[in-house]
Amino acid sequence: MTKFVTLTTDFGLNDSYVGQVKGVILKINPNINLIDITHQIPAWDILRGAFVLNSFYKYFPKGTIHLVVVDPTVGGKKKDLLIQTKDYFFVGTDNGVFSFIYESEGIKEILEIKNDKFFLNKESSTFHARDIFGPVVAYLSWGVEISQFGPKAKDCIKLNLPLPEIKKDSIKGEIIYIDRFGNLISNISKEHLNGFEKREFSITIGNRKIEKLSRSYFDAKSKQLLALINSSNFLEISARENRADIVLGAKIGDKLRINLK
Amino acid sequence: MTKFVTLTTDFGLNDSYVGQVKGVILKINPNINLIDITHQIPAWDILRGAFVLNSFYKYFPKGTIHLVVVDPTVGGKKKDLLIQTKDYFFVGTDNGVFSFIYESEGIKEILEIKNDKFFLNKESSTFHARDIFGPVVAYLSWGVEISQFGPKAKDCIKLNLPLPEIKKDSIKGEIIYIDRFGNLISNISKEHLNGFEKREFSITIGNRKIEKLSRSYFDAKSKQLLALINSSNFLEISARENRADIVLGAKIGDKLRINLK
Amino acid sequence: MTKFVTLTTDFGLNDSYVGQVKGVILKINPNINLIDITHQIPAWDILRGAFVLNSFYKYFPKGTIHLVVVDPTVGGKKKDLLIQTKDYFFVGTDNGVFSFIYESEGIKEILEIKNDKFFLNKESSTFHARDIFGPVVAYLSWGVEISQFGPKAKDCIKLNLPLPEIKKDSIKGEIIYIDRFGNLISNISKEHLNGFEKREFSITIGNRKIEKLSRSYFDAKSKQLLALINSSNFLEISARENRADIVLGAKIGDKLRINLK
Repeated sequence: MTKFVTLTTDFGLNDSYVGQVKGVILKINPNINLIDITHQIPAWDILRGAFVLNSFYKYFPKGTIHLVVVDPTVGGKKKDLLIQTKDYFFVGTDNGVFSFIYESEGIKEILEIKNDKFFLNKESSTFHARDIFGPVVAYLSWGVEISQFGPKAKDCIKLNLPLPEIKKDSIKGEIIYIDRFGNLISNISKEHLNGFEKREFSITIGNRKIEKLSRSYFDAKSKQLLALINSSNFLEISARENRADIVLGAKIGDKLRINLK
Repeated sequence: MTKFVTLTTDFGLNDSYVGQVKGVILKINPNINLIDITHQIPAWDILRGAFVLNSFYKYFPKGTIHLVVVDPTVGGKKKDLLIQTKDYFFVGTDNGVFSFIYESEGIKEILEIKNDKFFLNKESSTFHARDIFGPVVAYLSWGVEISQFGPKAKDCIKLNLPLPEIKKDSIKGEIIYIDRFGNLISNISKEHLNGFEKREFSITIGNRKIEKLSRSYFDAKSKQLLALINSSNFLEISARENRADIVLGAKIGDKLRINLK
Repeated sequence: MTKFVTLTTDFGLNDSYVGQVKGVILKINPNINLIDITHQIPAWDILRGAFVLNSFYKYFPKGTIHLVVVDPTVGGKKKDLLIQTKDYFFVGTDNGVFSFIYESEGIKEILEIKNDKFFLNKESSTFHARDIFGPVVAYLSWGVEISQFGPKAKDCIKLNLPLPEIKKDSIKGEIIYIDRFGNLISNISKEHLNGFEKREFSITIGNRKIEKLSRSYFDAKSKQLLALINSSNFLEISARENRADIVLGAKIGDKLRINLK
């Protein structure tokens, strides 16, 4: 049966780091189908890594192994984790990158990866993804029992995520992600809105006001701002055929506010 | 039998959009071999998408499904199309991105994708590629009859492509594509030249003149401009080990002119 | 059996050049598993291509074919090579890109690719990777005898690599590669150090001094410079959670010096 391993890293696309990891994995299990998600997580940006992981993992076939390498803090004191949920496996450093998974998936087991008989390089390594995560992922795909990789861990580190402030007639949130099209994605989910969107309200961001929730990116005049619930179920500020980040001069951390009328 | 699906999008490589689409496709048909062409079509640049598609599709095995997502104008009024030609399938939005295919391939059938039983998300979606195109491509690869996906469409939108102006002793054309090496690709094809290249002629672009057609990129002195028929059979202005776009300060839409002597 | 072909090119990710090569290969052998290493080798940067190739090739399964296309100097006088080593095949232009392989691998055979019955396009071509290397790689993966592709070649071009200057109490080297994280990789290997690292020494680069060799990227205070033997066994100057290239204003070719105390 085809086994899928997805790769989400901060390695970039100019060096051979991704290639080295791919080689190590395929040498151990040539039947793995490696799927590149992105290698452009900005270096050390754990929040973005966590957000990206949360947005794609659930679309993959059951049994997929998701390898996430963002700021592995190699040689630091952080643990290497193998997490099993109902449908998936996750492998990476215990630095907060699994924060959203922890909330959204039923976690069955968390292990600390410690058994160096599975490592490519038993000595101290400066390249965890190649020497530890790669081989672990490959042996896992062969069906090695997860308990073989190390002892159980109690918990994993969760990022102190900015949560929206929800009141009776207002919600205050902030921009947590800006995508390639300049769309501004907030930390306000469909669940947080909880019916707000069916009443009259306005959204204030910077010195601009948006008076309704659109159903599509084309539900506004050309170049105009709009707000919608996006494909990941978060409130998003966009601009028709335009970049909302530039229109608003917006950046990560900027506040937005929903007021009921 | 291995089924190939190529992916050409404007999603970029920094977000998880490509990853979400890949997951959806592989969940439905894990035997598909997904081939990334490029995800760097500039946002909303339909002409470039059409040009890129035309330059690679015919090199793939028969039966390959080519998914093209450029400016899907989600929620707009444009149709979603499934096109069958003699050797391939094409899936994408009816926005002109199939213009060149329409000319170069014998089109057997054009369908409007409408049958929401194949959609991931039957409600209005802001992410067509994941919720509609992905599943359609995957079910198509399983051998679902194309008529299942929707009704026949008469035609597809064709871009108003700039055509060269051909006279007895001159051809006027323009630059329609600049590649990563700074090569300037014109809208004048080998067919348009129709023997011109065997006679004495000169090519004028900006305030520069090129006096002959080279057979290779090395058929000029170092750093000098040259012209040749490129690997896609278009007249291209290049510079040996240099960027012709910078040498000439050239951009898309710039005119060039061939004069017989 | 799965056959792997790795792709390392200077084609970039915005055009369809990579896609064309992939299509040609898969049309001839649809069972090949194509692995992208990088397509971002800077145009014409042969040294970087050679360095990248050397850093990943050995992690792949035996029998893997490594296709390297950097500055193919199409139409120039350079040869097209097929190199067989104990475990791998290498295909590319004889321009120095195989310099490190030549040193590190036992080369069994070097052939000049000449037999145009395997070419996609028998006429003069401006796109070697698609018309010559792609088909050769694909037929090779089918098991065609390597002698079929052309006559034996005696040798391949080796770059004039900058070698460190090793004295009794000092080593002078230079930066030959800067990676995505701003790490400065020198031409001084673990072998060149030959025990130096076990004695008291200092490393001078620019107007800065580093007084010891770290074992990991976290063996320094936040933002501080450090030196270590990296995952490819070269001396590397790094900065904890920072970019050493920016801290030092360093670039390729900059000198560094190790002095025993």
